[in-house]
Amino acid sequence: MSHLQQSFAVRFTYNVFFTEQLFANTNPLLADFFSQQATSEVRKKLLFVIDSGVVEAIPDLLTDITLYFAQHSDAVELVPDLMVVSGGELAKNSPDLIEKIVDTVDRYGIDRHSYVAAIGGGSVLDMVGYAAAISHRGIRHLRIPTTVLSQNDSGVGVKNGVNYRGKKNFLGTFVPPVAVFNDSDFLTSLDDRDWRAGISEAVKVALIKDKVFFEWIEANAEALAARDMATMQYLIHRCAEMHLQHIAGGDPFEMGSSRPLDFGHWSAHKLEQLTNFELRHGEAVAIGIALDTIYSNQLGWLTDADTNRVLTTLRTLGFSLYQPMLDADNSAGILKGLSEFREHLGGQLTIMLLQAIGQGVEVHEIDANRVRQAIATLREQEPTVQTLHA
Amino acid sequence: MSHLQQSFAVRFTYNVFFTEQLFANTNPLLADFFSQQATSEVRKKLLFVIDSGVVEAIPDLLTDITLYFAQHSDAVELVPDLMVVSGGELAKNSPDLIEKIVDTVDRYGIDRHSYVAAIGGGSVLDMVGYAAAISHRGIRHLRIPTTVLSQNDSGVGVKNGVNYRGKKNFLGTFVPPVAVFNDSDFLTSLDDRDWRAGISEAVKVALIKDKVFFEWIEANAEALAARDMATMQYLIHRCAEMHLQHIAGGDPFEMGSSRPLDFGHWSAHKLEQLTNFELRHGEAVAIGIALDTIYSNQLGWLTDADTNRVLTTLRTLGFSLYQPMLDADNSAGILKGLSEFREHLGGQLTIMLLQAIGQGVEVHEIDANRVRQAIATLREQEPTVQTLHA
Repeated sequence: MSHLQQSFAVRFTYNVFFTEQLFANTNPLLADFFSQQATSEVRKKLLFVIDSGVVEAIPDLLTDITLYFAQHSDAVELVPDLMVVSGGELAKNSPDLIEKIVDTVDRYGIDRHSYVAAIGGGSVLDMVGYAAAISHRGIRHLRIPTTVLSQNDSGVGVKNGVNYRGKKNFLGTFVPPVAVFNDSDFLTSLDDRDWRAGISEAVKVALIKDKVFFEWIEANAEALAARDMATMQYLIHRCAEMHLQHIAGGDPFEMGSSRPLDFGHWSAHKLEQLTNFELRHGEAVAIGIALDTIYSNQLGWLTDADTNRVLTTLRTLGFSLYQPMLDADNSAGILKGLSEFREHLGGQLTIMLLQAIGQGVEVHEIDANRVRQAIATLREQEPTVQTLHA
Repeated sequence: MSHLQQSFAVRFTYNVFFTEQLFANTNPLLADFFSQQATSEVRKKLLFVIDSGVVEAIPDLLTDITLYFAQHSDAVELVPDLMVVSGGELAKNSPDLIEKIVDTVDRYGIDRHSYVAAIGGGSVLDMVGYAAAISHRGIRHLRIPTTVLSQNDSGVGVKNGVNYRGKKNFLGTFVPPVAVFNDSDFLTSLDDRDWRAGISEAVKVALIKDKVFFEWIEANAEALAARDMATMQYLIHRCAEMHLQHIAGGDPFEMGSSRPLDFGHWSAHKLEQLTNFELRHGEAVAIGIALDTIYSNQLGWLTDADTNRVLTTLRTLGFSLYQPMLDADNSAGILKGLSEFREHLGGQLTIMLLQAIGQGVEVHEIDANRVRQAIATLREQEPTVQTLHA
């Protein structure tokens, strides 16, 4: 018996650009990107797949894209067929969309060195990224996130995925994009819920990693709720930066079992599902953060004062911190989220809690009764919130 | 406008083991592997997917596997449902097989840190590897290749894939296995065609990279044709080693555009398709090697003497070097293989030819008339071969 050992490292590099009016003829960013990537041999192709919600909000978008690449046709060859697909969770629940993209890749002869660009919220990016990742063993993928959530979190990361028979992200891969373009103009078209929802991922990463950033959010919560764009731009930049650092500094393809950026997420995933995705991901995460913050307080780790700062900040941002499905306490209820979370991560259960503001800590056991108690706290506090908002 | 730059490297490490009687209770190799990978927290699961052709040839295999893991149940938990799937190209043409595996992964709660093992020829390994790669963003994948071709080439590499609407490997990913187990006992059950077919990949890599290895094959061609096992074991070991070195030393996930290990492959892929996969991949590669060797000779790069050594070695190994579909000279014929090959690689056309035995060289243009001339040479030489083999 003998063996050969194989060992190699693969380096991945990409930029996350921050800009405005990405498709304005006067904005050279995209054209420059493609020109720099061009090789002498063959003109590369570029297929766009666009979230229908974005097209509804910005009816000129398709024309703007076509005009932009007509102006910059030396850099890349635009596939004239701009695909528009359903946004939101529907994008990830529709296997036929994957097939449609793969067929378009085939029809236009888009090879591994050409591009598939996605414009939209996190769900569309996840779905298009997956279709690009499996076509020809991976076509270069560009992301143009249009929501707060996707600009500061999922859109700048390395994961893609779709749901399968109702199981969230059951199919997917780890494949970094070749570039991300964050255009803050897209954010003006968001409704208040989507504007707000993405902020919870920033609260999350601040709470477990960066006290200074949490205090900045706390101080700017009213400005954020009032849709101040400059404040939002800073929040997105800092949150995206921390997300990128976490990926690069740790285990980018999650081959180990720790995922410390998942604070507040075990219940959030389940809650989204229990509400049939009527709750936005970010709204569910805000509740999940509140739940695990109270749980950390119950353990004696987080002071009452700090616990209240977290809850108050979330409420000032406009989040509602209770949802009746939290109390669906049966075998398919919120606590089922723990085992599903474990299975999705693989290995043993790992849940992030708070030792202090800015300092997360991993635990491997969660006590069901303590969770019920935390839920009760949120339920009891809820009416006050409703009065405040009335 | 500002940007953040992301950059990280991911290291992949795996062993390729060479053994006999992998599932004999006395062989600790597999059990040791799982014990070494075990973590204290959770016992990992292991799902087997097995090529039906292998089960037919070795009827005791399923029992052997069950007994082996009953004996070594501390190391890993065998999923009792051993999946048996069609082998050969059918495995890669059946989207329902992917779905079946994904469903089994779901049903048995196999997480990202558990294992999916494939036993079979290259097609089954490619298909199962793909199903494992997309489930939960990648379940640990073990390969147990059972053919010469998969033991010395595809099975030790980092690619997986399935066909889509008749297009070879249209869907797939680059994901290294966590281990490969080459058990030479499986080779005894191969018919002569499959035994022989895998040798052409060794001829290929020797011709473009290692004159000494080619001369070894030349000197041992009769022993290989006569199915001498020790000779075959050396051939597989050396070929696998060169394949691993090529991957590690170059561009493992083929993000650039060069793939020098594809000598003889542009026509081989097309020929397999034109013969409805009646020609084995390795048989088509032998013809592809002969074709590109003669083409290299026509360019004045390879001497007549060396050209004859290559053709004689291939014929001594038992390969037939002409197939009538080579002369299907229409828009869907063999020359179409050039553009399909370019599209699959992406970027410009890159074809490996021979400067000398052991020394490949890349070109970016192929002359159609020269190809027709090389085909004519193979056609004219064919009757002699048939007489020799009669």
